[in-house]
Amino acid sequence: MTQPRLDEDLLNRPGGRLQLATPALVLDLDALDANIAAMAAWAGSQGIALRPHAKTHKCAAIGRLQMQAGAQGLCCAKLAEAEALAAAGLDRFLLTSPVVGTRKIARLLQLASRCKELMLVADDAANLRELAAAAEKAACDLDMLIDVDVGQQRTGVLDAATALTLATIIAESPRLHFKGLQGYAGQAQHIADYGERQRVSHASLSKLAAIRDALQAAGQPCPIMTGGGTGTHAIDPAAGVLTELQVGSYIVSDVEYDAVDLTGDGSRRFRNALFIYARVVSASRNGFATIDAGSKSVAMDGPAPVIAFGAPEGTTYTCSGDEFGELALPAGHNDALKPGDLVALVVPHCDPTINCFDWYHCVRGDTLVDIWPIEARGASA
Amino acid sequence: MTQPRLDEDLLNRPGGRLQLATPALVLDLDALDANIAAMAAWAGSQGIALRPHAKTHKCAAIGRLQMQAGAQGLCCAKLAEAEALAAAGLDRFLLTSPVVGTRKIARLLQLASRCKELMLVADDAANLRELAAAAEKAACDLDMLIDVDVGQQRTGVLDAATALTLATIIAESPRLHFKGLQGYAGQAQHIADYGERQRVSHASLSKLAAIRDALQAAGQPCPIMTGGGTGTHAIDPAAGVLTELQVGSYIVSDVEYDAVDLTGDGSRRFRNALFIYARVVSASRNGFATIDAGSKSVAMDGPAPVIAFGAPEGTTYTCSGDEFGELALPAGHNDALKPGDLVALVVPHCDPTINCFDWYHCVRGDTLVDIWPIEARGASA
Repeated sequence: MTQPRLDEDLLNRPGGRLQLATPALVLDLDALDANIAAMAAWAGSQGIALRPHAKTHKCAAIGRLQMQAGAQGLCCAKLAEAEALAAAGLDRFLLTSPVVGTRKIARLLQLASRCKELMLVADDAANLRELAAAAEKAACDLDMLIDVDVGQQRTGVLDAATALTLATIIAESPRLHFKGLQGYAGQAQHIADYGERQRVSHASLSKLAAIRDALQAAGQPCPIMTGGGTGTHAIDPAAGVLTELQVGSYIVSDVEYDAVDLTGDGSRRFRNALFIYARVVSASRNGFATIDAGSKSVAMDGPAPVIAFGAPEGTTYTCSGDEFGELALPAGHNDALKPGDLVALVVPHCDPTINCFDWYHCVRGDTLVDIWPIEARGASA
Repeated sequence: MTQPRLDEDLLNRPGGRLQLATPALVLDLDALDANIAAMAAWAGSQGIALRPHAKTHKCAAIGRLQMQAGAQGLCCAKLAEAEALAAAGLDRFLLTSPVVGTRKIARLLQLASRCKELMLVADDAANLRELAAAAEKAACDLDMLIDVDVGQQRTGVLDAATALTLATIIAESPRLHFKGLQGYAGQAQHIADYGERQRVSHASLSKLAAIRDALQAAGQPCPIMTGGGTGTHAIDPAAGVLTELQVGSYIVSDVEYDAVDLTGDGSRRFRNALFIYARVVSASRNGFATIDAGSKSVAMDGPAPVIAFGAPEGTTYTCSGDEFGELALPAGHNDALKPGDLVALVVPHCDPTINCFDWYHCVRGDTLVDIWPIEARGASA
């Protein structure tokens, strides 16, 4: 793990954030607090619970803030992610993808013995039978959800008959306990138009509700109905299907979600809380500057990052390699930047960008106030 | 840093590699050895030196093997990268991008005091003056190269007049020592056609040679002329301009370089040495399987990864999120994969893929023989 070296001496010194070694991942705690409060207030007003997704932030300190704001627990995409956050003291998790194979199931049961709650999803009969046998042998109880493919085409059962088969395997196991369904409409989250997003999301939730009804008719009630994300957080409660939302990106927002009308009226509920600080390392070419943040510090699977401050309005970023980005300066500002100048970028796609870094540099206003480890960075296995 | 947990018990057990927790980055040491030997033999036959780029592998164990095979030293793209490798015992570095700003220059001088050789590039007069003053104050000698933009448009001076100005600043400093030029033709490396790549590379080297000649005519000889990469390694020696090659990707190769005719006759000099092992986590949909490797484990800035083994010929990979990939199975093999099945992918673009992981799982044949830390992972600052 890289060290936040030479940064500690900047802590609690006004202006210290501007001297950070770059590239640095900078978290605005005022914006973070506001985002946590805004999502908690929204969920409270709708009577829906939150189980925020930790795959976005991968950080125990942020997870604790979400729990303090009333979250049911945290979602994790991978077992290793939950292990890393559990080692840092968190103890309520939902694993949102299947845990497959003898060795991973053994780790799962070890983790369950250290957690107040460890719930997971399954979509396969053989996997469930292996889980049931391992849980019985270890005398360890596991709460289970059946994962439903509501149109994302990634994981999940496709129909009620398969869901019922799986629920029966769970019911017949003394150590597995059926708690309900997961249906994550990933395909809906980034649809820019609110009305179209609403249509896609509600179609997904209708499918989920039909499977829930079939299970309940067969004597398998579904007290937990989990799904949704930042993109549909304002849409899903009204459908009355989900009992909780797996919101992730709201915590810091990003350029990708900035292009999505999240509230339906163009207003913003969440602030940009996460930035990459970079510095100009070369300005030989008129009209351009090269900064020290490329694809090893800025995820390139979505839109380009946009300038937060430090460069003239109209400046655009293009990745120019693993380690570098090219800033194209607007007309009339050809010489605006020189080597050493600090430029801040709004993170383009937050999840994989965060996964490049080992530390959040936390600021309030002009001051670097803390350095938080990203405990689950790289914890993909 | 993530732990290679539950992996140690697989070490030196035949077949152990097939039980690794996935996604895992798997390094074939026989192929690695062959690649190191092939590049050393090629360079020896051409009378050109090697200064391999560590930004690709970020690993002290691999750097040591390159040094043992006769490398002059290692290139690093970032100061933090060299610091991490120096902490692991390596001691000869060339920093291939400018080191800018008071705090980074202070770290540079600290690192120089611990190294047998620390050389760096510059392309800016103000930066050089700051380096000169800091080196003098610290009573620390620094070997300097002038970085030349030979067409990549990223860093480097554009003309001989600027190079001469910078060489004069270096010459007037008691602690800076002018050693020559860097000209990296990044724009040439991935041109698929050998002849076109040769044309672009030789044009770049002609520009570099002209600046070298101007400096030498002004009494500034250039004993070190460094540049080139894996894509032009077979082309550059014949031009007679470079004294050494900064080859990086050859060490493991990748899908991106597999599409490039590196030798001009279609033959392969380097083997695929690096793989991502992944497992099927869901196979609900006929004709598809979802594996546990997405954009947090497979760099998505280049081509898609290709299947090395574990899935029928004709299977294709598409990223389906940060944590998952979709395998589309060929006709007639709709049910070929089930949850838990192991699938190995050839890394698509090696550098940023390696930067996702903390460990190499090293294999020889069927056996996991070692686990190497990727010390400079994330060391971008």
